[in-house]
Amino acid sequence: MSFQLKILGSNSATPAFGRYPTSQLLTVGSHYFLIDCGEGCQMQLSRYRVRTSRISQIFISHLHGDHYFGLIGLLNTFGLMGRKNGLTLYGPPKLSDVLTAHFRASQTVLGFPIHFVELYATEPNTILENAQLSVTAFPVQHRIDCWGFLFREKPKPRRINKETIPADLSVEDIIALKNSQNVVNTDGTIRYQNEKYTLPPRKSRSYAYCADTRYFELLAEWVSEVDLLYHETTFMDQERELAEQRYHSTTLQAATIAKRAKVDILLIGHFSSRYRDLSPLLEEAKTVFSNTLLATEGQDFTIPE
Amino acid sequence: MSFQLKILGSNSATPAFGRYPTSQLLTVGSHYFLIDCGEGCQMQLSRYRVRTSRISQIFISHLHGDHYFGLIGLLNTFGLMGRKNGLTLYGPPKLSDVLTAHFRASQTVLGFPIHFVELYATEPNTILENAQLSVTAFPVQHRIDCWGFLFREKPKPRRINKETIPADLSVEDIIALKNSQNVVNTDGTIRYQNEKYTLPPRKSRSYAYCADTRYFELLAEWVSEVDLLYHETTFMDQERELAEQRYHSTTLQAATIAKRAKVDILLIGHFSSRYRDLSPLLEEAKTVFSNTLLATEGQDFTIPE
Repeated sequence: MSFQLKILGSNSATPAFGRYPTSQLLTVGSHYFLIDCGEGCQMQLSRYRVRTSRISQIFISHLHGDHYFGLIGLLNTFGLMGRKNGLTLYGPPKLSDVLTAHFRASQTVLGFPIHFVELYATEPNTILENAQLSVTAFPVQHRIDCWGFLFREKPKPRRINKETIPADLSVEDIIALKNSQNVVNTDGTIRYQNEKYTLPPRKSRSYAYCADTRYFELLAEWVSEVDLLYHETTFMDQERELAEQRYHSTTLQAATIAKRAKVDILLIGHFSSRYRDLSPLLEEAKTVFSNTLLATEGQDFTIPE
Repeated sequence: MSFQLKILGSNSATPAFGRYPTSQLLTVGSHYFLIDCGEGCQMQLSRYRVRTSRISQIFISHLHGDHYFGLIGLLNTFGLMGRKNGLTLYGPPKLSDVLTAHFRASQTVLGFPIHFVELYATEPNTILENAQLSVTAFPVQHRIDCWGFLFREKPKPRRINKETIPADLSVEDIIALKNSQNVVNTDGTIRYQNEKYTLPPRKSRSYAYCADTRYFELLAEWVSEVDLLYHETTFMDQERELAEQRYHSTTLQAATIAKRAKVDILLIGHFSSRYRDLSPLLEEAKTVFSNTLLATEGQDFTIPE
């Protein structure tokens, strides 16, 4: 099953240098999760030929415009394209006021239902759970209420070892083995010892999106050991004071969170429009956490099984 | 003084084929007028290197999303760029509800004043008048309240004829001649007959933007003899019935308005996303009105003095 992140927009505050405001698409198998939706998101989805009808869940971290001004246009386009499938929208409570004002003004009745889930928790809490994965929202520290999102695959079954598998296994036996059980005889004795015939489960992959936040150490615990961590780096380290004032982070702060959290890969984004060239931000972050990449438009990041 | 229209977006309903939703910029000398503001308008303004600080008047024809979803992003960016100059916004009354919902949700206080002028008239009426030009809003026929805008330069003074101008003219004499008066002696007799020393005024240039509308004949009277007429052509003529149902126009209907109104140039736009190639729309319109042009992204249309 694929587990892939596509960057649709990487800039902070306003569009600049061909960079769009924040938006990302996480695909886990056939599930398409849109994370934030800055202006022009629908153009970016179209540019990268995303099958937008598959987007069933949208997560809005907070109500600064660079994270949600593209939402009304996307929903409107879904309606015009004849969408019927429901959509679940996670966001701050006032998001529904804004959408309602738009729909009233244009006398729009969407042809599909929106299930709106308000974000409010002050501690990490699970907001979505299905057979494949769970999504946890965690509060970050920004000027207004803001949440990050942790996507984590559910624990997976053990895998049958094709080299040692006996010929007489029934379907029930296979299910038992995958669920870490032994296959037993009618008298209760062990016929097939689980570990002999199975391999450990594949790892449960994880992605954490930290939205807009100033540096705070607790965050590293919440995103501990994820495969892929997106952390904003609005500024270079020399703008540390400005970052603190504006509740944003620097390259070194993002890299410090990645290092403390022992993640595999750090993606940095939400770049200030003062930076045309992003390579200094990347180089600076790498001085603390070497496995850092730029989250720029059109980039795909795949976590293998 | 320049009188130039730049097309920022030409598509209807949704973005498609690299075409943006409707937005246009009219510059008359140092006055920058933004007409409609579909999603991505600010990216287009940036792409075409428009000095956005000069935009002092924004006209929103109606509250279908493809005509105003870019407005909140543009206003937000003005604020982030430190704009202090006031802005006048003309639009349907509910537009202010939508903007207020956004500003409340993000706790945004713009650093510049917005003067909001509600459109409501059911007959053409002047909504703006300054030393150079007047702007008239006229109601068109769409599914929801919708207005077109007619920009017309004020009548200009007569021009001094350099070949016949006497050497002894005072500043007052020149002003009198420009204002179509004769220069008279103290006894009231004519010293310089106006027509001998002046040339006719330059023509007062005009541009009419017809927004989204179904075909109605009265419109041709309201935009009579303008230099440049923009009329939507969402559909080819074979979709005449669909156009009527959706309160839109076809190529032949737009061209018929242009012909009846005896305009100089017809611009067609607001193309349905069903048309990747626009040349058939142009060719069809030309069968009725030959001086027709496509209003596509980045095109400039200049009306000479």
